[in-house]
Amino acid sequence: MRPFYENRHVLVTGGLGFIGSNLAIRLLQLGAMVTVVDSLIAETGGNPFNIDPVHDDPRLTVRTVDVRDVLAMERLVRNQALIFNLAGQVSHIDSMQDPFTDLEINCRSQLALLDTCRRVAPETKVVFASTRQIYGRVPEEQLPVDERQPPNPVDVNGINKLAGERYHVLYNNVYGIRTSVLRLTNTYGPRMLVKNNRQTAIGWLIRQVMDGETITIFGDGLQLRDFTFVEDAVEAFLMVGANDAANGQVFNVGAIEPVSLRELAELLIEVCGSGRFELIPFPPERKAIDIGSIYVDDRKLRRVLKWRPRVDMREGLSRTIDFYRAHRDEYWVLPAPATV
Amino acid sequence: MRPFYENRHVLVTGGLGFIGSNLAIRLLQLGAMVTVVDSLIAETGGNPFNIDPVHDDPRLTVRTVDVRDVLAMERLVRNQALIFNLAGQVSHIDSMQDPFTDLEINCRSQLALLDTCRRVAPETKVVFASTRQIYGRVPEEQLPVDERQPPNPVDVNGINKLAGERYHVLYNNVYGIRTSVLRLTNTYGPRMLVKNNRQTAIGWLIRQVMDGETITIFGDGLQLRDFTFVEDAVEAFLMVGANDAANGQVFNVGAIEPVSLRELAELLIEVCGSGRFELIPFPPERKAIDIGSIYVDDRKLRRVLKWRPRVDMREGLSRTIDFYRAHRDEYWVLPAPATV
Repeated sequence: MRPFYENRHVLVTGGLGFIGSNLAIRLLQLGAMVTVVDSLIAETGGNPFNIDPVHDDPRLTVRTVDVRDVLAMERLVRNQALIFNLAGQVSHIDSMQDPFTDLEINCRSQLALLDTCRRVAPETKVVFASTRQIYGRVPEEQLPVDERQPPNPVDVNGINKLAGERYHVLYNNVYGIRTSVLRLTNTYGPRMLVKNNRQTAIGWLIRQVMDGETITIFGDGLQLRDFTFVEDAVEAFLMVGANDAANGQVFNVGAIEPVSLRELAELLIEVCGSGRFELIPFPPERKAIDIGSIYVDDRKLRRVLKWRPRVDMREGLSRTIDFYRAHRDEYWVLPAPATV
Repeated sequence: MRPFYENRHVLVTGGLGFIGSNLAIRLLQLGAMVTVVDSLIAETGGNPFNIDPVHDDPRLTVRTVDVRDVLAMERLVRNQALIFNLAGQVSHIDSMQDPFTDLEINCRSQLALLDTCRRVAPETKVVFASTRQIYGRVPEEQLPVDERQPPNPVDVNGINKLAGERYHVLYNNVYGIRTSVLRLTNTYGPRMLVKNNRQTAIGWLIRQVMDGETITIFGDGLQLRDFTFVEDAVEAFLMVGANDAANGQVFNVGAIEPVSLRELAELLIEVCGSGRFELIPFPPERKAIDIGSIYVDDRKLRRVLKWRPRVDMREGLSRTIDFYRAHRDEYWVLPAPATV
């Protein structure tokens, strides 16, 4: 990767967030000139501490800009060789409670970024972070789903992320702006959001188990998921960014093997050394947008780009817990003071 | 239909446009209390003359409101039993030149209307006018396409209309707002936009042939399309609006049989009594978003709602040309005065 990324100008949107910051750190290791942009909206994944290991790297530029600020983004997009486009509203629940913010971030801002590339930076390549959420509920006999599965999003976030994907492919096909789409599953690892459950359940579970709280899982806990360790996801971004065979293409990014939520909880408790979990019925508003088991077929990514996941669940969880034990104060919400 | 629609309060968005006005006129004939809302944006399909036959009907209310005006729409939505939701940006070309306006109208305003129903009018049923454009290019061997065909929109308009569809189905499934979606093909007939080619090619061809201009068709003219006469499309809206078996469902609306653009031109010239056409190569910006032949399988609508198209092409074109001969001044752009 170093020959490709060394001295290359790369923009990472959502770059103070979970995957974006891990990607930015890796890009700096590879010698890239990295600009990180993040809105740092409260309660989302953005956290300035995420780039602490590289904060004084002279090749790093950090800009607190909201991707909805089209003019500010235009200035940042000029002269970039690559854009890793990870800025997004990721909470399914928030997308139902405030569908308009989700639309602004996941549709309008994506379209604006692409249209800016068309106008001022047509040579820039864009890699977009999408989600397996766009598949929605998939009948068990159709699992694992590959990229040809007709999308069937079951929440506003899924609908809008799907539109965002399609804008990227459209601008590739019609305007020759090189774009690729990665459909991420459940990515986990150091720097993930753990102070609430807006980004992914696993972060919330990690915080609960470390705080000695009882983990609660909706339903019977047998729902299967792919859990991708963030280093493996970062590697997929880097490979896709460096290879024009990926242009105009959509790729699933999976894991070594699907794992049930119950197995996840058990492994987490084992790795952490303490903890307990319980199964509780779905609250109605969660049941309405629940999708059962889902895991993906990512053979396309493995075939075209020779990617494969390398970090297994036990190692990944262990490294994650080690990270939060070392940096707990940067990620935890302090408990409210006791009232007298 | 009369027992269902008589005295029922019905809102038609885009109601001064082509299909909306025909629908409003028919609803008044059936005894409904009709509110028509239209933005009358220049160069689009809205035309106050479209409702001339009913303009003094006391059961008709006309409001010039843009669907992007969420608060004004909220006032109009209250107390409606049904909303026929036809307001949309329909030009594929415009959607590429100004993708943000298309997004505001076809995504944001749709989401706003549905969210307004959820908040203030949860009993209202909504019928949404979508388009077969969401299918994009379909390989010939997969024609005709039914509703299970994975969407593959090839322009911003198609992506946004698809998101609009999905919002409607989502609000049906999650919130119990009863919604149905009709995927229209090439609807034609009296009151269609003919002064430019923003809405549908057929209107533009009709104006050309009536003005003695040479009709130009891109490519070899063998591309097949469904042409639905507007009365048949209106009947589909009425049937879907009156039947809860359609809730949460998406239906193609087709025609008696697919017709090539060349056959269309020949029939049009024959019915008009004069005219000529020529085939010319695609301009690059049109080729980029051309979709070849497309026609739909509408057996679901025929099976579930017993709909079928009744007006054949010759009769439909004949009635259309008669209409524009009688009302030419209301639809034609006057030629620019000759310069000295």
